[in-house]
Amino acid sequence: MASLSCALYLPPKCSSIRENGSISNTPQASSALGVQRPPVLDVAYAVAFNPATSLAAEQIRQSVPTEKQLTDPFRQGLIVEGGVRYRQTVVIRSYEVGPDKTATLETILNLLQETALNHVWLSGLLGDGFRATHGRMRNNLIWVVTRMHVLLDEYPIWGEVVEIDTWVGASGKNGMRRDWPLRSRFTGRVFCRATSTWVMMNQQTRRLSKMPEEVRREISPWFTEMRAVQGEALEKIEKLDDNAKYVNSNLKPKWNDLDMNHHANNVKYVRWMLETIPDEFTEDHQLSSIVLEYRRECDSSDTVQSICEPDEDSLPRDKNIRILTGFSLAPEILDGGGLFGTLDKWPTRYTHLLQIKGEKKDEEIVRGKTTWRKKNKKSSNSSH
Amino acid sequence: MASLSCALYLPPKCSSIRENGSISNTPQASSALGVQRPPVLDVAYAVAFNPATSLAAEQIRQSVPTEKQLTDPFRQGLIVEGGVRYRQTVVIRSYEVGPDKTATLETILNLLQETALNHVWLSGLLGDGFRATHGRMRNNLIWVVTRMHVLLDEYPIWGEVVEIDTWVGASGKNGMRRDWPLRSRFTGRVFCRATSTWVMMNQQTRRLSKMPEEVRREISPWFTEMRAVQGEALEKIEKLDDNAKYVNSNLKPKWNDLDMNHHANNVKYVRWMLETIPDEFTEDHQLSSIVLEYRRECDSSDTVQSICEPDEDSLPRDKNIRILTGFSLAPEILDGGGLFGTLDKWPTRYTHLLQIKGEKKDEEIVRGKTTWRKKNKKSSNSSH
Repeated sequence: MASLSCALYLPPKCSSIRENGSISNTPQASSALGVQRPPVLDVAYAVAFNPATSLAAEQIRQSVPTEKQLTDPFRQGLIVEGGVRYRQTVVIRSYEVGPDKTATLETILNLLQETALNHVWLSGLLGDGFRATHGRMRNNLIWVVTRMHVLLDEYPIWGEVVEIDTWVGASGKNGMRRDWPLRSRFTGRVFCRATSTWVMMNQQTRRLSKMPEEVRREISPWFTEMRAVQGEALEKIEKLDDNAKYVNSNLKPKWNDLDMNHHANNVKYVRWMLETIPDEFTEDHQLSSIVLEYRRECDSSDTVQSICEPDEDSLPRDKNIRILTGFSLAPEILDGGGLFGTLDKWPTRYTHLLQIKGEKKDEEIVRGKTTWRKKNKKSSNSSH
Repeated sequence: MASLSCALYLPPKCSSIRENGSISNTPQASSALGVQRPPVLDVAYAVAFNPATSLAAEQIRQSVPTEKQLTDPFRQGLIVEGGVRYRQTVVIRSYEVGPDKTATLETILNLLQETALNHVWLSGLLGDGFRATHGRMRNNLIWVVTRMHVLLDEYPIWGEVVEIDTWVGASGKNGMRRDWPLRSRFTGRVFCRATSTWVMMNQQTRRLSKMPEEVRREISPWFTEMRAVQGEALEKIEKLDDNAKYVNSNLKPKWNDLDMNHHANNVKYVRWMLETIPDEFTEDHQLSSIVLEYRRECDSSDTVQSICEPDEDSLPRDKNIRILTGFSLAPEILDGGGLFGTLDKWPTRYTHLLQIKGEKKDEEIVRGKTTWRKKNKKSSNSSH
């Protein structure tokens, strides 16, 4: 046996993954799930353990609970809402903010991952020191994320105390949904809402799998119908080719970029995506939404290409009209990005693709769609 | 006034900075401190605030204490040892570990920075919402770090609860020392010890400054003689040129790499340094010591060169001798890196330099010295 793995849990029905990463609820035979190419990946959400490692020593150092707990004092986590919602309090650290003193997107994504994993941790479902006591481990199955959508209305600032809630629900017959809201503890304001879709994969064959009954029994008591993102439109992200406007090639994950599964971590993917957009744009704009559709993982032997195409119809048209019609411009329009937005002519939506450049063919890692807004100058500290 | 700044505090005597970054205790005139070139930098340890920012809103969101507090429940920090030592409990997060499931060096450095800043935060010395109520702010002075030495005997693992202590002490007449030990909360084992040296700098002129009496009064009640690193030898780090074995040029900080002061953050520096060493080495070796001597800051307009030279006399000689003399090799030597170490012929000490490539001349950012040991295979999970 190569190693034991466990990932973030979630549950299913008999489903298939569509090209846009959404789960179809149409019942299908299990063979439909056993597709050959690995269509999804366990980006930093799955945890691989080598049996050679001293488990006893690790257990003492990690003190992984083997039964459901209601609080985790060290992580400041607790179970609320009748047992289905995990809540963790975190303080935004000095190195988690960027030059404008707000949490970076990477920080937000990291905290979503962390709270999801801690939810599993506290629920006692990580297993007995990671040995296979649970259904999914016995079946050599791991949960893999296929889609993620994060909406950011505002970014927490350095030193801010935030509360992150997370829970799981059914997604079709064999899939699981995991949602998160993130809010200010003191003002209650919701900064960020996120939702994700997960399916089971056989860790050895890399084929998608139905959820065994044993796993369903384990996981379904945690399901809830609550939604962090209401009425989400599952818009398909079109596939780009390398005729796109921005292309960064020859990207290589360094040893330091790999996660516990020896794959490039999720944050590295997002970094590669966003670094393809010119700095002149990202300095003045703030990401308000990101959709990620995962196709396959990438490891240190892969060479990655990051492709990005602006959605030309996302230019701020309203402001052009204002100028043409000669309305007088209020100072806040001049100052707050209205006129700059027009002069910049920067589109506010971008389509992304990360792919592995293969000798024979390219293989998609992740497609993305980002939406941006002009930064509020007042929250950007540019002098120093 | 451009902006208010405050950084990590510490104290002084009338001192000068030697080329190796150490502080001389010899009393000197203050003109000796007012050197023209900016010889030190406030890498990610200083905090700049723009007066344009809404301070009232920030104060509510950050709730910065204006008086000394004894505990910070959200950060899990408290003051111990008669008021001079700050202690914070943190759990190593899933995304803070590398492929071998142990905390990365970047994580450790980030946590040292974070606890130092939280110590200042809890002590009430960050000021009234960052407005200039303190001596150093009135004098437009910030604390800047000139030298840092981190010793890593072992790395904490994912999920491990660690306690980080930190305190300050005098370093010469005008300098401050800040120390940290980091240990496992459950086993008590000390994983890491670190020490750093700080001096005051005028934020506008970028000249070093004596510590005003007002600042000394503020800070000296916090001083202690405790040492995390005993009997430290302040060995000078030689300056490299670009004839060195490994050279990475044209490194540019991206917008995302900048800290709150709009300088490339400290972790980025260390990343640039270590990425110059080939992956084949860093995959099998673990850093056991790093010394950093800071010379100046770098911002997004700079192009950086990372230079690295192995110390050829740091080849593992003992093992060569073993083979030559024909002693029988125990399995643990074969397995544990003894023979591999010999076959690899990798030196275990490296000298580093980051410099800005200028049109007229190059300017040093930071010199470094790293020491490595062969990784214990048992703690490295390479299968997945």
